[in-house]
Amino acid sequence: MGNNKAGEVITCKAAVAWGPGQPLVMEEILVDPPQKMEVRIKVLFTSLCHTDLSAWKGENESQRAYPRIFGHEASGIVESVGEGVTDLKEGDHVVPIFNGECGECEYCRCERTNMCRDYGVNPMKKAMVADGGCRFRTKETGEPIFHFLNTSTFSEFTVVESACVVKVDPGFPLEKMAMLSCGVSTGVGAAWNTADVKAGSTVAIFGLGSVGLAVAAGARARGALKIIGVDINPAKFVKAQELGITDCINPKGLETASHEEIKRLTGGGGVDYSFECTGNSAVLREAFLSTHLGWGLTVLLGVHPGPKMLPLHPMELFNGQQITGSVFGGFKGKTHLPSFAEDCMRGAVNLEEFISHELPFEKINEAFQLLQGGESLRCLMHL
Amino acid sequence: MGNNKAGEVITCKAAVAWGPGQPLVMEEILVDPPQKMEVRIKVLFTSLCHTDLSAWKGENESQRAYPRIFGHEASGIVESVGEGVTDLKEGDHVVPIFNGECGECEYCRCERTNMCRDYGVNPMKKAMVADGGCRFRTKETGEPIFHFLNTSTFSEFTVVESACVVKVDPGFPLEKMAMLSCGVSTGVGAAWNTADVKAGSTVAIFGLGSVGLAVAAGARARGALKIIGVDINPAKFVKAQELGITDCINPKGLETASHEEIKRLTGGGGVDYSFECTGNSAVLREAFLSTHLGWGLTVLLGVHPGPKMLPLHPMELFNGQQITGSVFGGFKGKTHLPSFAEDCMRGAVNLEEFISHELPFEKINEAFQLLQGGESLRCLMHL
Repeated sequence: MGNNKAGEVITCKAAVAWGPGQPLVMEEILVDPPQKMEVRIKVLFTSLCHTDLSAWKGENESQRAYPRIFGHEASGIVESVGEGVTDLKEGDHVVPIFNGECGECEYCRCERTNMCRDYGVNPMKKAMVADGGCRFRTKETGEPIFHFLNTSTFSEFTVVESACVVKVDPGFPLEKMAMLSCGVSTGVGAAWNTADVKAGSTVAIFGLGSVGLAVAAGARARGALKIIGVDINPAKFVKAQELGITDCINPKGLETASHEEIKRLTGGGGVDYSFECTGNSAVLREAFLSTHLGWGLTVLLGVHPGPKMLPLHPMELFNGQQITGSVFGGFKGKTHLPSFAEDCMRGAVNLEEFISHELPFEKINEAFQLLQGGESLRCLMHL
Repeated sequence: MGNNKAGEVITCKAAVAWGPGQPLVMEEILVDPPQKMEVRIKVLFTSLCHTDLSAWKGENESQRAYPRIFGHEASGIVESVGEGVTDLKEGDHVVPIFNGECGECEYCRCERTNMCRDYGVNPMKKAMVADGGCRFRTKETGEPIFHFLNTSTFSEFTVVESACVVKVDPGFPLEKMAMLSCGVSTGVGAAWNTADVKAGSTVAIFGLGSVGLAVAAGARARGALKIIGVDINPAKFVKAQELGITDCINPKGLETASHEEIKRLTGGGGVDYSFECTGNSAVLREAFLSTHLGWGLTVLLGVHPGPKMLPLHPMELFNGQQITGSVFGGFKGKTHLPSFAEDCMRGAVNLEEFISHELPFEKINEAFQLLQGGESLRCLMHL
């Protein structure tokens, strides 16, 4: 692509957060060249999810840091690579991932986890591992701008550790690939990898945002017989049914608890798998109670920021029901995402269905409003 | 064996509980013939575990029922069988199991659970499924005597549903087979079936009673490299080391929390598996924290009678650590116990090591004192 900027500072536009809940400011920033084992990416598409929303609001005070560039769901093209990067080169089509894979630590070497010691998801991390510094600076004063979730994609260019960059087939449309960066992989992977949903099984999904609907798409692809969606916003039911939800429940319209309705819909026994995608403690308990005694599995996907402990009694774990968390759908990003992208392009999951809105990057604050209002699944921004 | 009593009422001795914490009364009782799908067993050996102790004390008021015959760990010989019983006959050597297996319900047909709809462990059950009646009566007044945990083995003869009777090889010594009826199967099975402990792995066991030591024996048989035992009674460490525990920790002698000492002993990371065998909520949390991020599994074995909920935050399940309960070691009794008995007789687990005391049946109250004082592992009573 003829790159004259390699090794040089790039000046570009980014959406900078200056304080909790304040509108992002679209401004020119400086992006330093990638250091050792880092990659500079020209971001072409980015979207946003509730993690960005929550960080933008500064809901968790200990994680606040400003100025900062949010954004972790995106796709783009490698602009240049730092020393030691051998698996990526200029021009590669890539997806940044917030949960990296160094390939060498004790977690990366273990098949049972997709954690990574240094590059795993870490909301406290705000700078690069190599030197503890930032690769973004303000144009005016040169003040460092903090990174976010290993990715910081609300910028025309970003610098990401190579452990957090996945190369995808250049024949695949990058606007769809952005969906693999977070929400769709998280939901589909929870159904495929964490729960290992079987054909003919029954599923309940609590919370029908993008992640919940991606669980539905994953469960449908696996041949689940009944996929029950639970949400207090019935406006979500139309899209939900398009994506594979067979039965919709609005807890507000019920005289009984959701789990009782789910048991009724499953012949009395409950579902084989439930997925908690809301981050609400009471919902978590409903999700647990809705599964079948003996083998029911509840998968936690929602972020529970409050101090509330698990609303389960130890003896309830003796009924054969299990509960587990799932991060990034259990995918080891660099190892598994390229073939997952192929699965999607072959039709296992229709990525386009998750893009409910498209906006130019400049209208990013509008995208935040759409998500906050529950109106959008994914709003794809074009850079 | 020449049985003249089939179909008749048998008069025999039993240890009857008449009230919470009251010494058991050794008295003559009447044992009715087995009804449809029931088996009458001549009990030859019985021992007792903390579940008997707790029930004897009447710790859970809702489970109280008197008069009652406790006891659920035993072995014996089939005296006669009721209508429809085809897999057992007079003279068979058998082990009664508190967690039955009918072989036909949705749980028994599912490979992932050892629950059974009608004959699973149920501390509330006090009579037979067939007619809701008791097969024991007092000799004086004919008043019904309640059953306990599907088994009621503190009696020279007991009547048990055939789903709760496992036939064992008549060449195996029945005094050892009694150990398979509860504690040893529960512990070894937790290591083999629930946790699936791998060779070379690390294990921590909280509580070094029979179940904890059976976990150790199971982990050792699987080739675990390091098996750390935790108990506040250092008198248990001698036996523990004989059974495979490689490192003993007494939390009372530590300046740090147990889980920190366990991390130190495992190079900083923590164990691959931890087993909670105390029923204490704070210990449960230590057990969870002692496992390795990414793949650590905590198995609950202890009975938690109190109202305390799980002392874990939902977000703690996102670190890849899991927690699960285990009942009867995950064994489907009728399906798996015969081959487990063979494994033991071939030397995988030395059953004799669990028999710390032997007493005649008449001294059963003494056996309760031994267990309550933490002096015995299993006290085997000869009937």
